[in-house]
Amino acid sequence: MKALIACNEGVETAYGADQVTAQLKSAYSEFFEREVYIFPVASGTAGNGLALGAITPPYGTIFCHETSHIVTTEGGAPEFYSGGGRMRLLPGDHNKISPREFNEALQRHGIGNAHHMAASAISITQATEAGTLYQLDELAALSETAHRLGLKVHLDGARISNALVSMQSSPAEMTWKAGVDVVTFGTTKNGTMNAEAVIAFDPDLARVLGYMHKRAGHLFSKMRFMSAQLLSFLENDLWRSNASQANSNATRITRALKGCDDVEFAHPVDINEIFVSLPQGLSRALADCGINLRPWPMSSGRDGFRLVLSYCDSADDLELFEKTCRDYARDALVSADGNQQSPSIG
Amino acid sequence: MKALIACNEGVETAYGADQVTAQLKSAYSEFFEREVYIFPVASGTAGNGLALGAITPPYGTIFCHETSHIVTTEGGAPEFYSGGGRMRLLPGDHNKISPREFNEALQRHGIGNAHHMAASAISITQATEAGTLYQLDELAALSETAHRLGLKVHLDGARISNALVSMQSSPAEMTWKAGVDVVTFGTTKNGTMNAEAVIAFDPDLARVLGYMHKRAGHLFSKMRFMSAQLLSFLENDLWRSNASQANSNATRITRALKGCDDVEFAHPVDINEIFVSLPQGLSRALADCGINLRPWPMSSGRDGFRLVLSYCDSADDLELFEKTCRDYARDALVSADGNQQSPSIG
Amino acid sequence: MKALIACNEGVETAYGADQVTAQLKSAYSEFFEREVYIFPVASGTAGNGLALGAITPPYGTIFCHETSHIVTTEGGAPEFYSGGGRMRLLPGDHNKISPREFNEALQRHGIGNAHHMAASAISITQATEAGTLYQLDELAALSETAHRLGLKVHLDGARISNALVSMQSSPAEMTWKAGVDVVTFGTTKNGTMNAEAVIAFDPDLARVLGYMHKRAGHLFSKMRFMSAQLLSFLENDLWRSNASQANSNATRITRALKGCDDVEFAHPVDINEIFVSLPQGLSRALADCGINLRPWPMSSGRDGFRLVLSYCDSADDLELFEKTCRDYARDALVSADGNQQSPSIG
Amino acid sequence: MKALIACNEGVETAYGADQVTAQLKSAYSEFFEREVYIFPVASGTAGNGLALGAITPPYGTIFCHETSHIVTTEGGAPEFYSGGGRMRLLPGDHNKISPREFNEALQRHGIGNAHHMAASAISITQATEAGTLYQLDELAALSETAHRLGLKVHLDGARISNALVSMQSSPAEMTWKAGVDVVTFGTTKNGTMNAEAVIAFDPDLARVLGYMHKRAGHLFSKMRFMSAQLLSFLENDLWRSNASQANSNATRITRALKGCDDVEFAHPVDINEIFVSLPQGLSRALADCGINLRPWPMSSGRDGFRLVLSYCDSADDLELFEKTCRDYARDALVSADGNQQSPSIG
Repeated sequence: MKALIACNEGVETAYGADQVTAQLKSAYSEFFEREVYIFPVASGTAGNGLALGAITPPYGTIFCHETSHIVTTEGGAPEFYSGGGRMRLLPGDHNKISPREFNEALQRHGIGNAHHMAASAISITQATEAGTLYQLDELAALSETAHRLGLKVHLDGARISNALVSMQSSPAEMTWKAGVDVVTFGTTKNGTMNAEAVIAFDPDLARVLGYMHKRAGHLFSKMRFMSAQLLSFLENDLWRSNASQANSNATRITRALKGCDDVEFAHPVDINEIFVSLPQGLSRALADCGINLRPWPMSSGRDGFRLVLSYCDSADDLELFEKTCRDYARDALVSADGNQQSPSIG
Repeated sequence: MKALIACNEGVETAYGADQVTAQLKSAYSEFFEREVYIFPVASGTAGNGLALGAITPPYGTIFCHETSHIVTTEGGAPEFYSGGGRMRLLPGDHNKISPREFNEALQRHGIGNAHHMAASAISITQATEAGTLYQLDELAALSETAHRLGLKVHLDGARISNALVSMQSSPAEMTWKAGVDVVTFGTTKNGTMNAEAVIAFDPDLARVLGYMHKRAGHLFSKMRFMSAQLLSFLENDLWRSNASQANSNATRITRALKGCDDVEFAHPVDINEIFVSLPQGLSRALADCGINLRPWPMSSGRDGFRLVLSYCDSADDLELFEKTCRDYARDALVSADGNQQSPSIG
Repeated sequence: MKALIACNEGVETAYGADQVTAQLKSAYSEFFEREVYIFPVASGTAGNGLALGAITPPYGTIFCHETSHIVTTEGGAPEFYSGGGRMRLLPGDHNKISPREFNEALQRHGIGNAHHMAASAISITQATEAGTLYQLDELAALSETAHRLGLKVHLDGARISNALVSMQSSPAEMTWKAGVDVVTFGTTKNGTMNAEAVIAFDPDLARVLGYMHKRAGHLFSKMRFMSAQLLSFLENDLWRSNASQANSNATRITRALKGCDDVEFAHPVDINEIFVSLPQGLSRALADCGINLRPWPMSSGRDGFRLVLSYCDSADDLELFEKTCRDYARDALVSADGNQQSPSIG
Repeated sequence: MKALIACNEGVETAYGADQVTAQLKSAYSEFFEREVYIFPVASGTAGNGLALGAITPPYGTIFCHETSHIVTTEGGAPEFYSGGGRMRLLPGDHNKISPREFNEALQRHGIGNAHHMAASAISITQATEAGTLYQLDELAALSETAHRLGLKVHLDGARISNALVSMQSSPAEMTWKAGVDVVTFGTTKNGTMNAEAVIAFDPDLARVLGYMHKRAGHLFSKMRFMSAQLLSFLENDLWRSNASQANSNATRITRALKGCDDVEFAHPVDINEIFVSLPQGLSRALADCGINLRPWPMSSGRDGFRLVLSYCDSADDLELFEKTCRDYARDALVSADGNQQSPSIG
């Protein structure tokens, strides 16, 4: 018989929370091939803020790429959660921090120089905001430098599923085996409603995260909904099939675009994101059949677009996109032939 | 036709967010009978932290009852969100701050004394953690003192629905008409899964909340789920019927308990919460039929219990509770008669 | 030859700073009988703030006596320097935390309970704000409990010289040998213009303090003046002779006061501070000869005074105080005799 | 007659503090030709931190030049004092923010965009870290843009005396008349031991500064020493004569250097600082007569030096510097003649 006072929430929730925590911990520990500590949150900003705040003291510096999401669009979450830390912005091709740039920045910054802030953390986005990837040896090189000088390593994995699938790496290889200390594990961009998680590998770090997670209001009294999402993400390799589908959709569209002249890719297409400049005729043709691309500033100065492919793109839509490209390419060829022939006619 | 790139999340979400925000704003503005600014969050701790942080500078003091949830069980959210503020704890019967106590504390604290911190805010819980209520004139008196000295007024409304129903007040009367500047509006304890909201009445305060809400990671990229909860809470007066049911269940149980000797209520039962010491025989009788009450420390030193009634308590359970009380009372009477007669028999 | 560009401040200051730091470190290491790390500051508030901030994370709790200077008159420095910590106020006779009270508070608080904040530090004032002293075994008992549960120990030593002299303890015995991790070492109340120092015994803690000290603006470009004060404080045992003189002046005045009826001491007089209620006649007599005492609230409710004796009190003044007491006591006796005899005359 | 309890510090200090505050306030109000609020501090880092913290909320952005002292060498004081703010770094020739750059940065940043942080403040250094000056109309243009969009204006005046003298501006013209809201007023680099001050023009801002000043431990119990320095700085126009002397010394040295070939100035010499690349022969000649210059990185990549002239440079030293330059120029001419003639000889 159930207790009369059915919503005696304190007791029940605590119980539920423990159950859920245990299940999540177990599922994600298996996923990462070692014991992990998992803290569900409802936004990537919360996840990054907590993860960085746990490894950055108020007087600490976070080294990161100048285009990082944590820099550009998270409202100052790293400063908030660290209690006054600073981000030191690094340049780098295709939104990647190179080990050389990181080394030089650390040299200039110094270690133990009180006139500067402490060098505390590096934040690496995998896949990057440009849809590009760090290879495992690149991750390991950054981590090695970081650890040697006392910094911790954060991985912003908003698109980690796509990276894992693309690189055919295991979650373990891409994180703790490569020296990562704490991960913002994203699922929202790959299938869930609003569930992300901070994953830590070290119990001391987990202890800090526990306090911060509660204190910031991300420990929810009814965790069932969120945990259900995070568990279903791993079940039947849902994460993998979704990410594979999205990546292969991007490969199809990339191939279609490459068939057209004057199409310029800003970055290699490593996952499900395409950053591209198109000839005006092509973007107009796409718009004519209802495909409106999202404008995106290109460093080249040309008008550009960002395409994010998804597991839920329909086959019809993809075919329509391909057909529009093929038609455009053919017409352009004809037109070019016409142009070439024009003078000879004249 | 839908865009091919279906999960072009940036564009869609922004749109969705705007739609949702507009709907929420409109529904809650109608509810509060004036324009309000609403910020959904997934926990009461987040709501209280944001609300208090928006009205308390890092060098500010929040006056509150010493038993406030913000003091006892929110992991330091007020300090975190204010960036270093302090709570000044006030005593008061039945978990209520009395205007006199508030006045005296302000006198001792002083206004503009740099050796102290700025007197910035008062946080009032309605209904209180003891399930008791501030009458409208009590709220108004606290607010008047606060505003006269430059403090802002926060209402922790984790149980505001039960308070509204019990007092037959309108949301407007209990908040801005009584001088409240910002409300943590609770719905989780009264029917939703995990949706609370910060409600502000002033656009300047809303501007601050906007930055803080994003920065703390409580602005979710997919707001649909949370907003659906917050909207359904108001539809068909769901909040009112749920809270009325919970309150009247508490009235029934209170009446049943009052029929038994040696039952001591720690506080008046104003809403759906009962804090009570029971004779051991009664608590054992309840346990025997599956009704396990949550132990709760009583200031009297006696063993006590906290009962939180809910709209989802079953009629059978309530009747069983009443019957157990009646049986206990009858047996106690018989036993008492027996005891009285014993000597005469002897 | 001196460099032409004489105020080439960067180079010179750095040099000076290094010299000074080395000298200070060496002098204070000798004083404390082990290697110490010393951070000069210009106020006790800065010293306490830095010391507590270095051992308290933003999510941490500092246990301290409810009358601590850090609580009552430092404008929220502990919250500021910790970045959002909280002070948990403990009661205790004569402004002292008893080991029992500390233990019970920790029990209620819990360790590792995310709904609470982390238990991070205890702050002990020696001598206390009431001029009373913790014996060495009391300090050790508090430290032992703290360390066993992972808390650090701070000593607010605004009046540490007076305590050392009174207890005939060595600086080492009263600090690190008793388990203290970080000391706010006060000199301003005992002879210098405006120099205090934070003393740490652990290099990791010193590293944190280095960042915080600079960041808060307490690392002065021209350290000569402040360091000169801190060095002269130790030379020829100046600290000891000043504190001894102040303490023995307090002993004289205490003895004088004890000769008068109806003089009530609020606390034992352990150092150079006297908290006392006087008969009105005596306080008036003192005022008549120019001795105006500072009024101080007494927990008994009677009007009271706080007397802080100093090494620079003049012999004439002390004698005048004593004489006034003697005269008052004699007159009171005469008057009392008169009162007794009155009836017999009548 | 003095009180017996001579160091009854509470009473005396409060009195002293009030006296001092009044005197400082009056002297500096006269200096700035309007009522000002003055907060003495012992380092420029403290001054900048407090000033910026008072105008920047935890969620705020400070726009500043990428070479600002607040960015490069103050250990994160702006982040600490603002409680989590961020500095947005602007490029600009000769270390000056151009109105155009500021405008563009604000455009990109946006106003009221919660994904970004609030645009809260601009910090202008006068004279800049390159010893260059903003003209009054440049200051006014930056301030006008700032105020129009709701930002406050901070002036880092570590070298303001030199700027005032060089531009023949009044303190009023260079600050509040040009739209400056709060000034870090430097005196240490121009004659005092360790006294700087934050100057505010608005009582609301002063109220905030009062709390922060105390809370950070910069309100000293014995203010006499510091205030004496700040008062003497204004007496007999000491600040002006010191700064004039330093500037004119720099003019002499600049003229001497310009007489030599291959001397390259990195910036105009507007005050008492010279950033210059020298031919190796010249730097060696200077070193040979004891003049060792401070190496400084030049953006041209050449080896460079930074010379900071002072009011306390001796006439002998200046003449020696000039003579060394003249000798070098003459020898170089001879040598050059020799080189030219060589071929003809050959």
